[in-house]
Amino acid sequence: MNQRLEKLQIWMKENDIEVSFVTSSENVFYLSGYYTNPHERLLALAVFQEEEPFLVCPGMEVHDAKRSGWEHEIIGFSDIDNPWELVMNSINKRMKDVSKVAIEKEHMNVERFEQISTLFPRASFVSAEEKLRKLRMIKDAKELKIIEEACALADYAVEVGVSEIKEGKTELEILSAIEFALKKKGVTEMSFATMVLTGANAASPHGNPGLTRIQKGDLVLFDLGVVVDRYCSDITRTVAYGDINDKQKEIYDTVLKAQLAALEVSKPGVTAAEVDLTARKIIAGAGYGEYFPHRLGHGLGISVHEFPSMTETNQLILEEGMVYTIEPGIYVPEIAGVRIEDDVYVTADGIKVLTKFPKELQIVK
Amino acid sequence: MNQRLEKLQIWMKENDIEVSFVTSSENVFYLSGYYTNPHERLLALAVFQEEEPFLVCPGMEVHDAKRSGWEHEIIGFSDIDNPWELVMNSINKRMKDVSKVAIEKEHMNVERFEQISTLFPRASFVSAEEKLRKLRMIKDAKELKIIEEACALADYAVEVGVSEIKEGKTELEILSAIEFALKKKGVTEMSFATMVLTGANAASPHGNPGLTRIQKGDLVLFDLGVVVDRYCSDITRTVAYGDINDKQKEIYDTVLKAQLAALEVSKPGVTAAEVDLTARKIIAGAGYGEYFPHRLGHGLGISVHEFPSMTETNQLILEEGMVYTIEPGIYVPEIAGVRIEDDVYVTADGIKVLTKFPKELQIVK
Repeated sequence: MNQRLEKLQIWMKENDIEVSFVTSSENVFYLSGYYTNPHERLLALAVFQEEEPFLVCPGMEVHDAKRSGWEHEIIGFSDIDNPWELVMNSINKRMKDVSKVAIEKEHMNVERFEQISTLFPRASFVSAEEKLRKLRMIKDAKELKIIEEACALADYAVEVGVSEIKEGKTELEILSAIEFALKKKGVTEMSFATMVLTGANAASPHGNPGLTRIQKGDLVLFDLGVVVDRYCSDITRTVAYGDINDKQKEIYDTVLKAQLAALEVSKPGVTAAEVDLTARKIIAGAGYGEYFPHRLGHGLGISVHEFPSMTETNQLILEEGMVYTIEPGIYVPEIAGVRIEDDVYVTADGIKVLTKFPKELQIVK
Repeated sequence: MNQRLEKLQIWMKENDIEVSFVTSSENVFYLSGYYTNPHERLLALAVFQEEEPFLVCPGMEVHDAKRSGWEHEIIGFSDIDNPWELVMNSINKRMKDVSKVAIEKEHMNVERFEQISTLFPRASFVSAEEKLRKLRMIKDAKELKIIEEACALADYAVEVGVSEIKEGKTELEILSAIEFALKKKGVTEMSFATMVLTGANAASPHGNPGLTRIQKGDLVLFDLGVVVDRYCSDITRTVAYGDINDKQKEIYDTVLKAQLAALEVSKPGVTAAEVDLTARKIIAGAGYGEYFPHRLGHGLGISVHEFPSMTETNQLILEEGMVYTIEPGIYVPEIAGVRIEDDVYVTADGIKVLTKFPKELQIVK
């Protein structure tokens, strides 16, 4: 049994949960090592306190699931099977009279809930999500290594983007060049829709890359992430094209100061709120408080947004193994939009910054 | 009240449903005209038999929702509001003691179901999905016009792709050129991940665009779709690069013959199964039955896969207003993969073919 499953089993024993029935692609992957997007078909991992777990997936994927390293039972079903009957048979072989089942209440839909309620007519259903979020929040060495690879590719992507900046090029031209360069490196998925925004577009919270052309004096914002082995990176850099004015410079310097201070304060034992507020106070102190309308950052891993949430009210204490973004920004409509974002990993006594593209103001000539 | 809501209300009266609580982005858009992806926040449209419907959305989107043309009540909520309380207040103003509620059981998750069950403690919950699928299956003139635009852009995309074919170019280079050309035309979203597959890759059911280079004698397969005003198109064309051998030619001719026959038989009054079987028999008759492993096609609209499903067992009778794909294919491993796909609209006495890129074998020199 892998360690993640063992941790889930301990939690199940502590809470008298006899079956965990996990159904989201992300959590099935986290616990089993097998990733698939089953679309409308059923994907599930059933975990028990002592008995052998089993995976349920479309029949044509059984081979892939085995190859992914899953060593326990796999139940494949065809389009004419009723997968719920197969599930019930496999559970009945292990136990009767289940009274408490953990499910992903934010993932499972009502139709499936009605099915599973029929399978376990006497059971109460509790949420597995809080526990799974906590497990996923602490990354192990293997996860860290993958995220580091994803971050290195994100650095490379920004480097390509900056090298493509030229008078008159559109945001979309630069975006296409970045994504093509990544595809050539074997990247098949971005963490989210890549953003290349210039001038006033970067200053709008609703900016989307389009046909706006880069002009001298613009600040150009890149926000992007790369998926490697199902783990996401997420970086933002803002660079200048030609000479920028004092106001733009002041905004850049303020964001950078706030970002560096939040990195500096990050370590085990401090709260997420303290990290957020460290950056927020610097921005507010410079008179830009109202122009920093979002949280400082978010956890990062199999999902591009996961725990911990770096907000000014989150009293969660940082621990070794957490990975999150630090991404303060200032957006003054029509004047300038600047955001600087790194991904960090909490070590035993501080942090390791995983994204490495330079942050001193880069001026593209 | 718009016609779509009126039709839903008639169904509600016939089935004694007092409230329909619609929550998927697609169905809220279909009924209200407002599209948003609310991520983890609540989006809902509450519809009653007689009383005024209301929309529930994040507060910062209220203005956008109004601008989209929704003329009824809008309830915006902030991140510190409990949106369910606001929903309950608005429902209480309209009625007490609700006994039957329609929800999207395949969309609503268990967590929300527990919330809504608390709001309506005495109610039974039925599925709204079958009715909504049926409503969406019949397109009106406005929807047809949008889908035609999306199809014209899909034709253009294939044209770009074919013009980019050149010895030694990779699938990803051609894919990037297609998507960049579309972005320049203002396209911001594809219906699904664009496929450009060459040679043996096109013959594999698991082919994904990569760094394979196009060579003389390859068949090159394009499968892509464009989203216009939230409606999807979906086209597949397979073209030859240089001279192809007799086997490749025979496969192409068989697929084309099957595709044309399925177009020919499509009209109101025939079943989806008859259309599928018309193509399937031609392919089987030519000895390639086992190499055509998927249904003939699928409905198309706000979702890239919707009703009707064009399978060999679906006895649904085609009606004017339906839009679906006809996309037979033959995939012989290591030999050739060919698929030809059009989008069609069922008229009063036949069909209108919406995708128009030529289907006679194109040989790129």
